[in-house]
Amino acid sequence: MLETLYLIAIIVEAMSGAIAAGKKQMDPFGILIIGTATAFGGGTLRDVVLDNHPLVWVEHPEYLLITTFAIVVTIFIRPLVRYLTEAFLVLDAIGLITFSIIGAQKTLELGHGYLVASIMAVFTGAFGGVLRDILCNQVPLVFRKELYGSISFLSAWLFFGLCMTSLSMHACILITLIAGFVIRMLAITMNLNLPTFNFDNKN
Amino acid sequence: MLETLYLIAIIVEAMSGAIAAGKKQMDPFGILIIGTATAFGGGTLRDVVLDNHPLVWVEHPEYLLITTFAIVVTIFIRPLVRYLTEAFLVLDAIGLITFSIIGAQKTLELGHGYLVASIMAVFTGAFGGVLRDILCNQVPLVFRKELYGSISFLSAWLFFGLCMTSLSMHACILITLIAGFVIRMLAITMNLNLPTFNFDNKN
Amino acid sequence: MLETLYLIAIIVEAMSGAIAAGKKQMDPFGILIIGTATAFGGGTLRDVVLDNHPLVWVEHPEYLLITTFAIVVTIFIRPLVRYLTEAFLVLDAIGLITFSIIGAQKTLELGHGYLVASIMAVFTGAFGGVLRDILCNQVPLVFRKELYGSISFLSAWLFFGLCMTSLSMHACILITLIAGFVIRMLAITMNLNLPTFNFDNKN
Repeated sequence: MLETLYLIAIIVEAMSGAIAAGKKQMDPFGILIIGTATAFGGGTLRDVVLDNHPLVWVEHPEYLLITTFAIVVTIFIRPLVRYLTEAFLVLDAIGLITFSIIGAQKTLELGHGYLVASIMAVFTGAFGGVLRDILCNQVPLVFRKELYGSISFLSAWLFFGLCMTSLSMHACILITLIAGFVIRMLAITMNLNLPTFNFDNKN
Repeated sequence: MLETLYLIAIIVEAMSGAIAAGKKQMDPFGILIIGTATAFGGGTLRDVVLDNHPLVWVEHPEYLLITTFAIVVTIFIRPLVRYLTEAFLVLDAIGLITFSIIGAQKTLELGHGYLVASIMAVFTGAFGGVLRDILCNQVPLVFRKELYGSISFLSAWLFFGLCMTSLSMHACILITLIAGFVIRMLAITMNLNLPTFNFDNKN
Repeated sequence: MLETLYLIAIIVEAMSGAIAAGKKQMDPFGILIIGTATAFGGGTLRDVVLDNHPLVWVEHPEYLLITTFAIVVTIFIRPLVRYLTEAFLVLDAIGLITFSIIGAQKTLELGHGYLVASIMAVFTGAFGGVLRDILCNQVPLVFRKELYGSISFLSAWLFFGLCMTSLSMHACILITLIAGFVIRMLAITMNLNLPTFNFDNKN
């Protein structure tokens, strides 16, 4: 199940990177690079930081072909992109939680503790988008909007909690996915954000 | 001694990252991430580049709790931040030299030469701030202001020179710290900058 | 031959980084850091991603002295820089193809396939410039201009194709260099760009 969800996640992330790059007037090559970096950047950062080699896309370059295909399709359907915003948000939410669970699980398997694993969930889930925004020269959105990174973090801890019960791994993954997805959808539809603070003036 | 100074250094760096992120209207989660990246980014870059695993914060996640606490405190005392600017600059100078000495020393212990060790001093001392500025989407300050990175570099070479004398390691660290600190304070109070050049027009 | 070309490549890249940093009003230390990062950033990213340690400049710090010298010279000759634009473009094109061939070849030697090797060609050839632009806080030029990254990619595949023939390695390198160089020069003189797309409005 995670395998299928992982494929959806990298495809959605690649498309979101391609759209962001396209809006910055990048050429197709730039769109390809940034889409690919968005899809694999989070996992790459996690594995470099944990010294977990070979990287996923180095070992399985076929994943690169899948995201490349998704990016090329995105370029061709770009007049339709605006009509797909809602579908994208749904798929992106699934991708976020999937990446978070995979990141947390891999880190635990490498023998690290829960705190490090929950940070790796955020790296895997949210840092593809951070990389996308850095490469497009804009302030990373995930630090400002709709609980994105915090949902990744919370999903990891929910997953750890469920793993301590007698539930099967499948059930743990499914419950985490559904709960994380619902919170993310609520955050978007209700436009929930964490508060921001005024560091310049008194408040 | 270095241990205590290291704790001060990561706390100060974390707070400086939190303040920068707060000024960019990031939410608490973004502030937490950027504060943490500022505290550990330089050492992480050094250890990734030198293939020195596990990383400090992966092996000692308790450091992450310390910086998280410092960041949360920063958010709560934000109306006071402006009054603490001078205290911050003093602590940040101590942090810069501490990080530089630690970075240089670790690199030598790994068997590398002085040139590489002095570069790692700069990575450790100054790149947390570079990462902070990249994540906040601004031109890295340390490349422009008050000898920041260059003091890190010079401190490393002073430290190497002292280590060749018959002084104890403690004395070497202390002298480097004091000398680096004094130069940094002079640079700030006298607004010393390295010259910048005009690459666009004749000069 | 590749050895000599590699030296030219890192010198040219270092100078291009120094010029970009100088235009951003960085101090000499910032110019030095960004010039060095431009020269070695692409290869460093490749080797970190492939877990190929020690890094080139960690093992051969003497290369750092060469680029430092080139950067210092750049600062001194800055009034002349504008008259050297064409010479720079020629040398930079040689550097791009050289880096690409070296990146591809090293990756194959590490046992990876062609797809990964061609991506590493792009990393090695073009990501020094990406890093330069991120550190200077501008949208990476190589994603937008004159086929830069795509020539790196195509050079790698041309090189792979030639290696399958009975040509000597020297001949393969030389042909790739000349072909890539000619395409790059044509792209510049004819102002060839890949098309960009409008993702915001219908088109």
